[in-house]
Amino acid sequence: MGHRIGIVGAGVAGLHLALYLQKHGVEAVLITDREPDAYRDSRLINTVAHHHVTLERERQLGLDQWSDPALHYTYHDHVFSFPEPIRFRGDFSSPSRAVDYRLYLPALMEVFAERGGAIEYRRIEEAEIPALAARFDLLVVAAGRGPLGQLFDYRPEHSPYTQPQRRLCVGLYTGVRQPDPMNVTLSVSPGHGEMIVIPTVTFDGIATALLMENVPGGDMEGLAGLRYEDDPAAFRQAILDALETHHPTTYDRIDTARFDLAQPQDLLQGGVVPTVRRSCVTFDDGTCAIALGDVHSVVDPMMGQGANIASYAAFVLGEEIVAAEVLDERFCEKVDLRRQDRVLAAARWTNLMLQPPSEAMGRLIGTMSQNKALADDFTENFNYPERQWDRLSTPARIDAWITRMTPPELLAGAMA
Amino acid sequence: MGHRIGIVGAGVAGLHLALYLQKHGVEAVLITDREPDAYRDSRLINTVAHHHVTLERERQLGLDQWSDPALHYTYHDHVFSFPEPIRFRGDFSSPSRAVDYRLYLPALMEVFAERGGAIEYRRIEEAEIPALAARFDLLVVAAGRGPLGQLFDYRPEHSPYTQPQRRLCVGLYTGVRQPDPMNVTLSVSPGHGEMIVIPTVTFDGIATALLMENVPGGDMEGLAGLRYEDDPAAFRQAILDALETHHPTTYDRIDTARFDLAQPQDLLQGGVVPTVRRSCVTFDDGTCAIALGDVHSVVDPMMGQGANIASYAAFVLGEEIVAAEVLDERFCEKVDLRRQDRVLAAARWTNLMLQPPSEAMGRLIGTMSQNKALADDFTENFNYPERQWDRLSTPARIDAWITRMTPPELLAGAMA
Repeated sequence: MGHRIGIVGAGVAGLHLALYLQKHGVEAVLITDREPDAYRDSRLINTVAHHHVTLERERQLGLDQWSDPALHYTYHDHVFSFPEPIRFRGDFSSPSRAVDYRLYLPALMEVFAERGGAIEYRRIEEAEIPALAARFDLLVVAAGRGPLGQLFDYRPEHSPYTQPQRRLCVGLYTGVRQPDPMNVTLSVSPGHGEMIVIPTVTFDGIATALLMENVPGGDMEGLAGLRYEDDPAAFRQAILDALETHHPTTYDRIDTARFDLAQPQDLLQGGVVPTVRRSCVTFDDGTCAIALGDVHSVVDPMMGQGANIASYAAFVLGEEIVAAEVLDERFCEKVDLRRQDRVLAAARWTNLMLQPPSEAMGRLIGTMSQNKALADDFTENFNYPERQWDRLSTPARIDAWITRMTPPELLAGAMA
Repeated sequence: MGHRIGIVGAGVAGLHLALYLQKHGVEAVLITDREPDAYRDSRLINTVAHHHVTLERERQLGLDQWSDPALHYTYHDHVFSFPEPIRFRGDFSSPSRAVDYRLYLPALMEVFAERGGAIEYRRIEEAEIPALAARFDLLVVAAGRGPLGQLFDYRPEHSPYTQPQRRLCVGLYTGVRQPDPMNVTLSVSPGHGEMIVIPTVTFDGIATALLMENVPGGDMEGLAGLRYEDDPAAFRQAILDALETHHPTTYDRIDTARFDLAQPQDLLQGGVVPTVRRSCVTFDDGTCAIALGDVHSVVDPMMGQGANIASYAAFVLGEEIVAAEVLDERFCEKVDLRRQDRVLAAARWTNLMLQPPSEAMGRLIGTMSQNKALADDFTENFNYPERQWDRLSTPARIDAWITRMTPPELLAGAMA
């Protein structure tokens, strides 16, 4: 077709799209302000798990750098620190894997370049946007910062919050024992927050991400503002104290003598305002810009959806570009029709989980602790957020799911 | 699942859904204010062609009353009465067929009843809507008249007109010769209107529908208000005069001695305001009502899309009902996600064709007259309005389509 695609942003969305288009013979230029060498010593970017649907897309792109089974994890361990604690396991149908994006993103940039892809390293200023658009048949905006991201208006009907719902304290740590096989732990301290424990491939082997999702006003809110550099020992002790009180099964995995940030810069603190934006704008010359990844929908990291839906949407967009004759508003509409259910479901599901659980959600948690098939289904649906939303979006749907997954002789007890 | 579905309206949408649900073991109650016997002598309802995608759905429903190949037509004949007339043919991949709905609808009602389906014959008053909703897990509104249709708000972004764009004069006539095999003729008199000539199965064999789409302010506008009963001979002569001047290839098919309405009541005059409505409302008790068929989108009949998209949407809705555990707003959202592209494309394409042709559309018509494959593609897309919209929605898309379908050695001429 001879399309020429400009992709601004070299996160997972931009890179998976660039590699997809490259594989299918479509000319794509990647534009980013960060060179591969700049990632090595930078501050932690995020903590990201790739579920098996995303790993399958990596295989399609010929990315096999982290295919060693020893780097993968196979199940979720759920821990609820109720007065009577609940703990249960949910297995994936196929393993997941997390890689530090300071390793992952530059590796993919180098693959793209080695395969002949063009990368321009520069920042886009507002004044040059029209000239940039004029160079391409479609401009893909996959970097939220800067003037390009601001082109896309918020969709208030899908953006219920104006403030972060969690105060995040995210670090990569040494001294946390991994089970064999490895898992991800979802640990909940009601009223205080959640913690996601993720075995993560780093430059120096496996470290442990502690993604602490602290409720504003709860015991651990202050961790999001506690400075490591000022007093590393005090920081370590504050984290250990919080774990001992609120996330005890993780505390039990810690060798306190070895417990520390893997590197001083392996810490990220702050919060995310979940937002969904309109996804298409048309420039005066008729060229369209389409939003991808976080520019389209940014979610709280709790459910591990951001990177996975970004990669999903990148492939949908790539498939549509390869099939399209004309890259116009109708094209963007068709892309949205295909991707919106999964993208919006990830946002809605995550936003739901940021709220105190309904009675029905409480029933679901209790039933999952007794019903492995239900817990497995919940876990597998991290790959398919639209299915999760089908099951969780209302109490009636939660109860219908419980009923369907519960043997008849146990049903009376489950719904009590 | 044990769903209980109420379907208000026994047009093609309501009946295809009722028969689909019946086939799949879902309890459906059909509610209509018109008994089968009331159709026989009623005024003409419409003129409707079923394209092959709709005939395939009929086969799935076990409806084989009109499967005789002699009742079908296989191609479109296009006639443009430009100063230099253009005429060309486009073939379907599989035949189409039109049946008078005064025959078709009661026959399907009887099939539904014979197979054990429940039909309630009554009019719904506004006050009883809550009680009606309470009887069902989902209320399907497939009848636009009355208070139920008013529940669904217009979507102004998809409803560009406030007035009919054509003044319709539609009749079933005797004395029009059919070619062998039969065809549908699309005859255009620029500035004055279009006429669709449809061989139609009636109670008394094949008659010819003349669907005259007269432009307001054009020569034939008055036909939409001309009364047959007052002076049948004058009415006949007015139609013949219009055909002779504006649709001469059809005039040439007429045996003037036999030309007349097949029955005095075989005439329908008026106009349609194309509108799209929101498709889901939720009652106080939580029951949802979903719009189907003309309640969801009503189109001008020019492109023959109304019945076909109504049947399509009925099957989408039926499939989703069969698969669903809970029939709520999320359910309606998923139905819309599946059906909206085709339903909206039919509306947009039809609305486009109601406007004077763009230069690109003129190029397309000229090229189709010289390029059988292009004309066949245009014709086949009456089955797939979303594909037609992909090709026609902008001049760039029309030109891309022409380019793709034109042998390189002829391309320079086509795009001149």
